[in-house]
Amino acid sequence: MHKEDIASSKRNTIQKQPYSLRFPFCRLAPRRFNHEEGAMFSFSMMRTCCAIFALCFVLLGSKSSVLAQTVLPVIPLPATAVQGSGSLLVDHGLQVVFEGHTEPRLERARIRFFDTLYREIGIPGVPASPVKREQLVIKTAGPSAAVQQLGEDESYHLEITATGALLTAPNPLGVLHGLQTILQLVHSTPEGFAVEAMTIDDRPRFPWRGLMIDAGRHFMPLDVIRQNLDGMEAVKMNVFHWHLSEDQGFRIESKTFPLLEEKGSDGLYYTQDQVRGILEYARDRGIRVVPEFDMPGHATSWFVGYPDLASGSGPYQIERHWGVFDPAMDPTRESTYQFLDQFIGEMTALFPDAYFHIGGDECNGKEWDANPRIKQFMQAHHIQDDAALQAYFTGRVQKLVTKRHKITVGWDEVLQPDTPHDVVIQSWRGQDSLAEAARRGYRGILSAGYYVDLNQSAADHYAVDPLVNGTVALSSAQIANVLGGEATMWTEYATPEIVNSRIWPRTAAIAERLWSAQSVKDVNSMYQRLDVLSQKLAYYGLPYQSVREQMLRRLSGYSDPAALQVLASVVQPPRDYAREGLKSYDVFSPLNRLVDTVPPESDKAREFNEVAARIATGKAVSGDWQKTRQWLVLWRDNDAALQPSLVKSSLTAELVPLSRNLSQAATIGLLALDALQNSTPVNAETQKKQLSELKEFEKPEAVLLNRIVPGVEVLVQATRTQ
Amino acid sequence: MHKEDIASSKRNTIQKQPYSLRFPFCRLAPRRFNHEEGAMFSFSMMRTCCAIFALCFVLLGSKSSVLAQTVLPVIPLPATAVQGSGSLLVDHGLQVVFEGHTEPRLERARIRFFDTLYREIGIPGVPASPVKREQLVIKTAGPSAAVQQLGEDESYHLEITATGALLTAPNPLGVLHGLQTILQLVHSTPEGFAVEAMTIDDRPRFPWRGLMIDAGRHFMPLDVIRQNLDGMEAVKMNVFHWHLSEDQGFRIESKTFPLLEEKGSDGLYYTQDQVRGILEYARDRGIRVVPEFDMPGHATSWFVGYPDLASGSGPYQIERHWGVFDPAMDPTRESTYQFLDQFIGEMTALFPDAYFHIGGDECNGKEWDANPRIKQFMQAHHIQDDAALQAYFTGRVQKLVTKRHKITVGWDEVLQPDTPHDVVIQSWRGQDSLAEAARRGYRGILSAGYYVDLNQSAADHYAVDPLVNGTVALSSAQIANVLGGEATMWTEYATPEIVNSRIWPRTAAIAERLWSAQSVKDVNSMYQRLDVLSQKLAYYGLPYQSVREQMLRRLSGYSDPAALQVLASVVQPPRDYAREGLKSYDVFSPLNRLVDTVPPESDKAREFNEVAARIATGKAVSGDWQKTRQWLVLWRDNDAALQPSLVKSSLTAELVPLSRNLSQAATIGLLALDALQNSTPVNAETQKKQLSELKEFEKPEAVLLNRIVPGVEVLVQATRTQ
Repeated sequence: MHKEDIASSKRNTIQKQPYSLRFPFCRLAPRRFNHEEGAMFSFSMMRTCCAIFALCFVLLGSKSSVLAQTVLPVIPLPATAVQGSGSLLVDHGLQVVFEGHTEPRLERARIRFFDTLYREIGIPGVPASPVKREQLVIKTAGPSAAVQQLGEDESYHLEITATGALLTAPNPLGVLHGLQTILQLVHSTPEGFAVEAMTIDDRPRFPWRGLMIDAGRHFMPLDVIRQNLDGMEAVKMNVFHWHLSEDQGFRIESKTFPLLEEKGSDGLYYTQDQVRGILEYARDRGIRVVPEFDMPGHATSWFVGYPDLASGSGPYQIERHWGVFDPAMDPTRESTYQFLDQFIGEMTALFPDAYFHIGGDECNGKEWDANPRIKQFMQAHHIQDDAALQAYFTGRVQKLVTKRHKITVGWDEVLQPDTPHDVVIQSWRGQDSLAEAARRGYRGILSAGYYVDLNQSAADHYAVDPLVNGTVALSSAQIANVLGGEATMWTEYATPEIVNSRIWPRTAAIAERLWSAQSVKDVNSMYQRLDVLSQKLAYYGLPYQSVREQMLRRLSGYSDPAALQVLASVVQPPRDYAREGLKSYDVFSPLNRLVDTVPPESDKAREFNEVAARIATGKAVSGDWQKTRQWLVLWRDNDAALQPSLVKSSLTAELVPLSRNLSQAATIGLLALDALQNSTPVNAETQKKQLSELKEFEKPEAVLLNRIVPGVEVLVQATRTQ
Repeated sequence: MHKEDIASSKRNTIQKQPYSLRFPFCRLAPRRFNHEEGAMFSFSMMRTCCAIFALCFVLLGSKSSVLAQTVLPVIPLPATAVQGSGSLLVDHGLQVVFEGHTEPRLERARIRFFDTLYREIGIPGVPASPVKREQLVIKTAGPSAAVQQLGEDESYHLEITATGALLTAPNPLGVLHGLQTILQLVHSTPEGFAVEAMTIDDRPRFPWRGLMIDAGRHFMPLDVIRQNLDGMEAVKMNVFHWHLSEDQGFRIESKTFPLLEEKGSDGLYYTQDQVRGILEYARDRGIRVVPEFDMPGHATSWFVGYPDLASGSGPYQIERHWGVFDPAMDPTRESTYQFLDQFIGEMTALFPDAYFHIGGDECNGKEWDANPRIKQFMQAHHIQDDAALQAYFTGRVQKLVTKRHKITVGWDEVLQPDTPHDVVIQSWRGQDSLAEAARRGYRGILSAGYYVDLNQSAADHYAVDPLVNGTVALSSAQIANVLGGEATMWTEYATPEIVNSRIWPRTAAIAERLWSAQSVKDVNSMYQRLDVLSQKLAYYGLPYQSVREQMLRRLSGYSDPAALQVLASVVQPPRDYAREGLKSYDVFSPLNRLVDTVPPESDKAREFNEVAARIATGKAVSGDWQKTRQWLVLWRDNDAALQPSLVKSSLTAELVPLSRNLSQAATIGLLALDALQNSTPVNAETQKKQLSELKEFEKPEAVLLNRIVPGVEVLVQATRTQ
């Protein structure tokens, strides 16, 4: 589901759902929350956010009910929240007291809660307090399942008053979620760190809220996995989908078939002890772990040690390029299934989750077509084509999985006419294929629209709902087949250094889509809360912002990074699969350029483009003209400061034209701004020439887009010609 | 040695050694390295540094020999370095080949070398290369000692050419050091990352180059310990001195006396398994680990579980305040020595190093004086005073250490008339006491002047040499008794969050003092190389710069941190023990204020003060006037931007007057600058009033010093009065 068939599939198409932007209004404060503020998710926005947070809660209507939604900094937004009076100070005085069911996991959660809280507010980690004061009472009704199950009750009830807090939940899963809500609510006040008094009732909309990480293409060390489990816990995601084998690497120790990792991993794999450590780590955070072993395609790395598994004649090497490759398992030999039976036996014993992912995507069938023995088998068994052969393979493998009392998960392709009905379909094709599956009685999870490796905006991902398009026509029983969704992080362009800044913070917007009510879709509110979370994620174990700063320093060598930072703030990597066409990459490619450093969306450029649109349409508000001029002057003059250092390093030499284009686009923007401000007509020829120059600047340079160009174009187009 | 007797001891006095500042000159390039550049250790300095690095090596004379010293970014500076021609490109092509002696530690060093290198240059960690190319050949003559010994040969020889490199060493210790030199030499060029061709012969000046971390007052998690071992490896330090017990906490598991950690640690202690992990981690990095158990004073935490050890009547609680406290072990009961015999037996079995530190500092004797039984014992045994009683105790404990075949280390106080001659004295009093010990045949290590917790400048620490003052009169045999020194990090004012930014990068200046030749003392060169190292330390595992940025964001809450950053850039915590007098702190005090965030020295203020001095003395160089005016305008106007946000958080409200003072000082500075630039006389009364205002601004606010005041004073004083 990852690479082929771009034109014909939906996975590349961002589904813009029609949704009404409801502007929140304040119950308690006269301040209006306007569009301009909502669009600036910078520090100044956070100031706005904080002011609103301190003043009021906001009600948003929804079709089904009036939900109390807040712009308080919690993501995903709770199901209901009602403001209380006053606030609870949070410092050494806070005690946690357990009532009802207890277990070691809860005690570890308490320790972790305080560790995170102390990091967040910066107080020493001395657990004993000299003075007993506020209590957080945690009442847990009973245990959760010994192995976390899909659909377990994850609800919690939280009451915060000025003197204490009560967190109740049917089982530890709700407690874990409630603690994260408290941590996100902590903020700085004139009196100290505090949590506003309120009552929250919360539960998820979907039971399957996942993040997939591809550890096959680039191996992701344990630290990275743990950091992402920390991030998932913070936003209440509950499935870690671990993509463990790929053409480029087999990433887990097999005691039954040790050549898998010995020959297929470059030594970069997880031992089974390490995996067990991750499983415990995930369970402690209310997260299931679903392993994926991709077959029959995407499996070259298996064949380096076990060529007899493959349909070609071998020998095989670990794949060093990106793409879809020919090697595929041989579905016609019994030895293949004997091997997989043992292998699946070993892996299902290691991973306790009830679900087991067998991949199934992007098998191009070329090795099958080229092998006379396989063609003969197909004829003998009346197998019409490669799709049918794969269906035969999937059916056989699915039985092996069932034999181990597990439920099979596979990508869209595994859905065939006679696919058994307990197979779960992970859709990279979109809601229509999800709907088709649901109608036929298959359960499914959505990943189309949630590919966080594709440099789309948080708003784009946020707009994708599993229950729209094809799914709207489903009966309620069929709707129940839609289990949720998964953010998917493929790693052609992500090393361990980069991967966190590709997954976060945007995955939190997906987490909200899957947890909060369908009616929760105010993009401005989401961006505000995302911004607050971005700051907190460093305390939650994800220091991707500082890694980005460190990468900028590396790019700058011994030069001052300030000018490079200016350029970095307004450029973006191209979206979707455009990068592949711009430059050639493989497993060894350094990912240490500006395109690897900048976030997938430029906040600054978006802000500029919005202000430019207001100016162009005569809707400028106070400060717009001045701000625009300052920015354009900065961008115009930055090139002179930056150029001398760019050529000093092989990492930055490619940025010479990009920096120059920024300067030239800003120069054009300033001319337009002058004309607009003075209401001076411009020469039509000049305008035409400028627009054609800007067209040129829209093209990627150094695999980066200059994102101020759209705003400058808007300004130029708004000038009056003579 | 830590807290008392401030007036009478030298530990507070920075010993300014007379040393001649030798300005390096370039052999190959016409460019002069001038004082102004040397003082700016900003990014612009790094550009300078890089330019020089690319162009030339620099020769500095020394008394004993002409050493080839470079301003290439290596700290500590190697003993000799001779430039070759061309440079070695460093990328996936680089291979490491071992010849001669091999052992698993070397293989781990190779993996670590590549991990660090790949992080540093930002390439994927795929160890296999598609193309074999450059080789780094490592020839190791033989093994080092099974347990690392004081004085082992740590030398190495490194030859780098444009086509490969050769690293030879008598044993793995030199290999470890040589690999760090290579990593530090890597820098960005137009052709890619590279190392200049050169030949280096290197060995340390002193055999004991240590860092002490106090894990007693604030517990320091394993991560922090490992990060500092990484930092120590980078700068070739070889002794980690682990201060494991204090009044405020007993930090290690004892299987013999489990109440030590159970009652004395708040649950914050290292298990013996964890300690063994650290020992291996340290050995892998060529670092010995010397544990310290402080006795008979600084031991309150022992007595919570074992009150019979103490001289008072108990019961005892973990101490929550900072200072010197009365509780002390009872030196008069045999049960004390029976306990210590078992305890030392257990700990010497755990820690393999030949040295064992028993503390011995700051026992005030009050519990002894108050106990009639102890007074009686003293009379009966003709023990004159508390010092003599402590000497008796030390003598007994030293025998217990000797019985376990270990050598005792203690602070200055353990040196008494009949101290056995194998005891090593760690001096917090200075070179004179070190000299006295050496003359009497005791070996010693210097810590006076290396207290990195005291907010002194890197230049201050750098100026402290173990072999000056009292030590200069020593014979060469006596000089051999001076083993080296230790940077010491006491942690009253350092949580795990802060501690790395207190230790680094200044400890690297101490590491150079202890490794490089005595003649290496160009402060400008040190600061340049320190600046380069600061950038690299993030790759070496010490991300303290980003932690600082994160702390600034916490201080700013949801406000833009830019204005706070401006204030932060010109203020400094007060030096030495001044902080204690300004505010009351204890174990629970949050260390999350601006004073905890800013570095111990303000680079920006130092730069300003130097420029102001040039202007005042008529020696301004190009750009000085303009730069000074820009800075002063920024500082003057910053208050208006900053004030509104300061009061929003309890963390920043205290900064209101400091920010205002900065603005007012800058305003005065601008008036003076105008007068100087226009040669206008100023009213004498006005000048007097301004100087008296500035005097006020010199006083700490919010436990911080406004460090632009000295420069402004210099400007005002330079104006002509009428």
